[in-house]
Amino acid sequence: MDSSVTIFGDWGTSRLRLFLRQGKMVLDRRDGPGIGSLSKSPCETFLELVGDWREAGPSQALLCGMVGSRNGWVEAPYAACPASAADIRDRLIQIDADGLPVAIVPGLSCRNALGGPDVMRGEETQILGALALNADLAKGRHLLALPGTHTKWVVVDDGAITSFLTAPVGEIYALLREHSILAKAAPGDAESAEGLAAGFTRGVARIVEHGPGALPHLIFETRSRQLLDGLAKDEAMGFLSGLLIGADTATTSSWFGKLGQVSLIGAPALSVLYAEAITAHGGASVPVDGDSAVLAGLTTLSSAQNSGVHVLA
Amino acid sequence: MDSSVTIFGDWGTSRLRLFLRQGKMVLDRRDGPGIGSLSKSPCETFLELVGDWREAGPSQALLCGMVGSRNGWVEAPYAACPASAADIRDRLIQIDADGLPVAIVPGLSCRNALGGPDVMRGEETQILGALALNADLAKGRHLLALPGTHTKWVVVDDGAITSFLTAPVGEIYALLREHSILAKAAPGDAESAEGLAAGFTRGVARIVEHGPGALPHLIFETRSRQLLDGLAKDEAMGFLSGLLIGADTATTSSWFGKLGQVSLIGAPALSVLYAEAITAHGGASVPVDGDSAVLAGLTTLSSAQNSGVHVLA
Repeated sequence: MDSSVTIFGDWGTSRLRLFLRQGKMVLDRRDGPGIGSLSKSPCETFLELVGDWREAGPSQALLCGMVGSRNGWVEAPYAACPASAADIRDRLIQIDADGLPVAIVPGLSCRNALGGPDVMRGEETQILGALALNADLAKGRHLLALPGTHTKWVVVDDGAITSFLTAPVGEIYALLREHSILAKAAPGDAESAEGLAAGFTRGVARIVEHGPGALPHLIFETRSRQLLDGLAKDEAMGFLSGLLIGADTATTSSWFGKLGQVSLIGAPALSVLYAEAITAHGGASVPVDGDSAVLAGLTTLSSAQNSGVHVLA
Repeated sequence: MDSSVTIFGDWGTSRLRLFLRQGKMVLDRRDGPGIGSLSKSPCETFLELVGDWREAGPSQALLCGMVGSRNGWVEAPYAACPASAADIRDRLIQIDADGLPVAIVPGLSCRNALGGPDVMRGEETQILGALALNADLAKGRHLLALPGTHTKWVVVDDGAITSFLTAPVGEIYALLREHSILAKAAPGDAESAEGLAAGFTRGVARIVEHGPGALPHLIFETRSRQLLDGLAKDEAMGFLSGLLIGADTATTSSWFGKLGQVSLIGAPALSVLYAEAITAHGGASVPVDGDSAVLAGLTTLSSAQNSGVHVLA
């Protein structure tokens, strides 16, 4: 059993989560600012946060997410699909932080189901983690979904990530919710869970009824229902969410054929919404906790990490 | 020939346009603030702007647009479709502004092609204007489009507005352009007409290729092409516009059957984009100038206006 001490990190746009690990145990965890809101350089920020952890004698740190983007610490170029754990491990970018070796996980690129370019950064680690947590996923063909600001639908074939497709569902929802006159005009402030849930179910149903092409017109229906039916804000926001998640699910379903059983990787609150949309489109889903998946994925990538790393001078 | 002096106004959310008319001649025009950005009451704002026009002895003023909304001057309740010019005229709301009779045009409501509620306010006047400007439209069934913040597709049967369908195309475009990380991250500032046009054509083509259900995923393609292909900002913005207008047109086309010849009412720069999307979806279009349509529509509504107005105390 490996008992070496390592630092794992998931450094996204809005949040850094750091873990001090010994073997498979988490000794400590710490949160820090996202790559998008740093007041110092990524290296200084990182070293300040890990500070006293250095006393535990970590042999290395392994970081995934936007930390490897062009505006991150160091750019870790996208690896092309199909990509296995070994392919991604081969493309780790190794740097030095005050004597501590730091490896940065690359993102992935592919030609997606629309024949266009697509990218991910951070999700590849969660996907590898889901494969490590559930051995059934490592054989055969499987569909996974990672809901979020930019939701990813991912096809895995015999353990390799072969293709994925992104929709900026969370981002469009936030834009409509925060900036649109549709949302601003909604009467009521309280956002009850019941209202949100009822609105969500109705939004998904409207997409099932009319197909994902109706999305823009159904977004306007939110406004019309406010004006004519006195639709309350909580239900309106749930309705918008149901339309967006429903349309993403409907379109993915038609491209990938039958949805079958989808592994849903992410925060439970969001996964529950996708689970409802997947069920409404004839599929089924199994949740995989996003935080556990990150740790498991970093564990996969840190194994035998010294073979084939790219060292930057 | 009618030689009475009247004041016509198109008072929308962001702009007021006022016309002093004698018979069918425009004697003078003036612009003012939209209903959404008034520093005084609508009545005070209006009276200040028309000021010296009162010397010409106007017999009445006729105003359309958001001035008749709940947050306008006085609420002019939506008239239900099907609605002819006479139906709308019957529902004018008459008020008094310092001795000058002012009539406010009601908006319209309908059950749209999706079986949901839909609303318009201001466009009904432009549609009546298009019918007045082109006698062919007053007989038989015709499809009209009014591109804008909230694009309306309208079915007219023998001169009556029977149904319409709204998509907030301009609003979603503005949100993506101004607030999304997709747009902010685009390299380059200059927005050349060539880049915008090339991006637009490509965006429409992507929708023709994959259908309107692919809209969210193709919006993300903008981001992927920025990251992988160095897509410039002008082309990215054109691409987004092509996706949104293309998807709206594609969905409308499938609901209304063959697009046929669409009358495009609005500002020329926007109508040209819709014309391209309509052509790409197998239809044809004829432009109708939006400003001319408003004046023609108000003329239609002011004729015989004294029959059947609703007078508020």
